[in-house]
Amino acid sequence: MIKAKAWALRKHFDGFPKDGDFELKEEQLPALKDGEVLLEAVFLSVDPYMRPYSRVRMKEGDVMIGTQVAKVVESRNSSFAVGSYLVSRCGWRTHSISDGKDLTPLLSDWPENIPKSLALGTLGMPGLTALYGLMEVCEIKAGETVLVNAAAGAVGSVVGQIAKIKGCKVIGCAGSDEKIAYLKEIGFDEVFNYKTVSSLEDALKKASPDGYDCLFENVGGHFSSVAIPQMKTFGRIAVCGSISLYNDTTPQTGPYVQPHMIFKQLRMEGFLVHRWEHKNVESLKQLMAWVKEGKLKYSEHITTGFDKMPAAFMGMLKGDNIGKAIVKV
Amino acid sequence: MIKAKAWALRKHFDGFPKDGDFELKEEQLPALKDGEVLLEAVFLSVDPYMRPYSRVRMKEGDVMIGTQVAKVVESRNSSFAVGSYLVSRCGWRTHSISDGKDLTPLLSDWPENIPKSLALGTLGMPGLTALYGLMEVCEIKAGETVLVNAAAGAVGSVVGQIAKIKGCKVIGCAGSDEKIAYLKEIGFDEVFNYKTVSSLEDALKKASPDGYDCLFENVGGHFSSVAIPQMKTFGRIAVCGSISLYNDTTPQTGPYVQPHMIFKQLRMEGFLVHRWEHKNVESLKQLMAWVKEGKLKYSEHITTGFDKMPAAFMGMLKGDNIGKAIVKV
Repeated sequence: MIKAKAWALRKHFDGFPKDGDFELKEEQLPALKDGEVLLEAVFLSVDPYMRPYSRVRMKEGDVMIGTQVAKVVESRNSSFAVGSYLVSRCGWRTHSISDGKDLTPLLSDWPENIPKSLALGTLGMPGLTALYGLMEVCEIKAGETVLVNAAAGAVGSVVGQIAKIKGCKVIGCAGSDEKIAYLKEIGFDEVFNYKTVSSLEDALKKASPDGYDCLFENVGGHFSSVAIPQMKTFGRIAVCGSISLYNDTTPQTGPYVQPHMIFKQLRMEGFLVHRWEHKNVESLKQLMAWVKEGKLKYSEHITTGFDKMPAAFMGMLKGDNIGKAIVKV
Repeated sequence: MIKAKAWALRKHFDGFPKDGDFELKEEQLPALKDGEVLLEAVFLSVDPYMRPYSRVRMKEGDVMIGTQVAKVVESRNSSFAVGSYLVSRCGWRTHSISDGKDLTPLLSDWPENIPKSLALGTLGMPGLTALYGLMEVCEIKAGETVLVNAAAGAVGSVVGQIAKIKGCKVIGCAGSDEKIAYLKEIGFDEVFNYKTVSSLEDALKKASPDGYDCLFENVGGHFSSVAIPQMKTFGRIAVCGSISLYNDTTPQTGPYVQPHMIFKQLRMEGFLVHRWEHKNVESLKQLMAWVKEGKLKYSEHITTGFDKMPAAFMGMLKGDNIGKAIVKV
């Protein structure tokens, strides 16, 4: 019998999450039935989407939603060998039992020198989000100018690099000088710290005086109000996240976007990565190829200890991480 | 020598236009040169776009922009016979001289019993706007639910009828009981007067409890804030106009749209009718066919007298018209 630990949502978040909103539970796991596997978490993901989804997908007392890289420690399912690694959507748990339906094996030729935790980042959901947002939603073309905010985050850092691979000019902004230095290192053309510039509008104008063909939107709110008027005619806005709005107790307001949308014939589209799930294997192979070639660099912000899940989550929401925020058990 | 009258923008509009912002001028037109034609206005158009475009396309003293159905009264251009009718973009003028480049002849088989003024409405720019917004931007499919606001206007009334022709369920709203009666008459499935409902949110929910696949947006502002949360997953919003915002002196604000855009994967696209100009002849033939078959009904709000152009324009902005607002010289 295995004792599993799990982090539950004790109380729905009201504004920014706090320690008391989480509760560590212990569960006794039963013996495996035929077709089941026992999983042990190795790396767990903390992601922005967990904040808005806590309200719509969870009730108080539920285990926090989320994905993890897990190791199969016992198996009564011939598709999953003991010792193999996979991605599970079982939430914030140290151990879990699965019938295999919700499990995604890691790419079969995963190189030894590439951390398996990347299956939660550059070679997982955030990497796919960046790829699909650019290719399917923005439909970027070589020579275009792409703006991405929260650029040093798990998604943003991949967005900028893929846009560069595809021949675009990339402008990124982030909230610390350390992040800005990182963005330069991974090849962004123009970068600025939105917290220290005297005017966001001027900073955007200076970074690309001709405006922007594409905006990969992770932040929303005030940033979008300033950026949208600087889009070029026929500009595309991929709305991936709106982290500046997730912790609102009353919705923030800003100028209506319609006049800009009309006169510049802009297209704005929200998306969820699952829309293109049928392409995931092929897409992950592409991302892996770029990582192997050194064209797609990665950075991880690793917190050690399952007990630190809430702290890692709140730190990520505050922007502590450069690259993907990961918890290592 | 012809004396032409023309309405000029005396002063840039500050908020809602007023009489003193316009100025009636007289111009002496010179004799025609080779290749030129002399046009006499028969019907002139007043349209919402003139309000926002006055700021970006005109300087004080310029003649107001706009289109008209004109008659060729003298011709030194073999392409345009005296007595023929065409659409000219010469602005608010009784007479004008053209080298023919900016002129669009009326469809060659225009029936006697169909008013030529429709070339400024259902069989002109507003009709094309409705068609392209539905087919190219919203990409409507039979069985979908389409919401249109300012539904009794020149564009909205065509939107609803084309959506019906294409097999959609159509909900329209407008600002008077007379308009609502008209919308019922031309086949809208559900209609309501947004000025008299106690709650816009409830009215929209009642009209389509399952939500909306498409929103044809002519109004913007508060309406959009209430409608967007009621879009279905993968909903499309064609942003054609935002008449509720055109007269703002300081931009109105509302809740940011990004969270809804993401979690419902909505697409919002602004558009200008000229984008599909290459399809206009074919499209106008389609609209004409529907008019002849009685599937596409029209209504015109005709003001007589060139001197009433400003009043007709301001009345249209206030929503006086059912169908297309036209000035007959």
